Amino acid sequence: MSNYNPGLHILAGFSASVSSLSGMEACRQFFDDTTAKLGLVKVGDVYHRFPNGAFTAVVCLTESHVSIHTWPEHGLATFDVFLSNFNNDNTEKVKQFYAATLLHFGATEISKQEVKR
Amino acid sequence: MSNYNPGLHILAGFSASVSSLSGMEACRQFFDDTTAKLGLVKVGDVYHRFPNGAFTAVVCLTESHVSIHTWPEHGLATFDVFLSNFNNDNTEKVKQFYAATLLHFGATEISKQEVKR
Repeated sequence: MSNYNPGLHILAGFSASVSSLSGMEACRQFFDDTTAKLGLVKVGDVYHRFPNGAFTAVVCLTESHVSIHTWPEHGLATFDVFLSNFNNDNTEKVKQFYAATLLHFGATEISKQEVKR
Repeated sequence: MSNYNPGLHILAGFSASVSSLSGMEACRQFFDDTTAKLGLVKVGDVYHRFPNGAFTAVVCLTESHVSIHTWPEHGLATFDVFLSNFNNDNTEKVKQFYAATLLHFGATEISKQEVKR
């Protein structure tokens, strides 16, 4: 299938402070702001807080999704951003969303994989 | 960070029939059943249908997430399953969820990447 090129997916792990990894409402505001700034379209989201302050969030976009899972007890988060290219080439927006996320969380990257899928 | 081993993430692309790629309610039932069978815990989900029958769905689990984006107009879907290992080793459950998904959609795998993240 020669035109099979859904888009770029960045899968990352990063360390950050307990307070930023527990900041679910700040993350919600950041994700919504960034989605709007990049001209992406949200079609739904889930934010769930665990008793210890950890949270998990997924934003569904017409262009695919963004997700984060935080483990403040380990000082860690995993983050994904995947935007499809069917309507536009969103490769640069994937990189921009990821860079903004590191900045928002005051994060230190532990791992990053870029998957062209 | 020697113990940094959040878990296995399978990223796949597959082809399937227009009818299965448009079957959002069947997918919802399948995801819920599979989540229960594997002993996973759902904390929220989003299902969104597009005007052409395509749909996007994300299931948030305490163990991370499952997502699918379908493009019946291209005969394609992208699928992700990522389960963290912090509380249990969920590696086999990731593989089982993926195998069950191919079966549910009557799918032909186009691409699969296994990322240990």
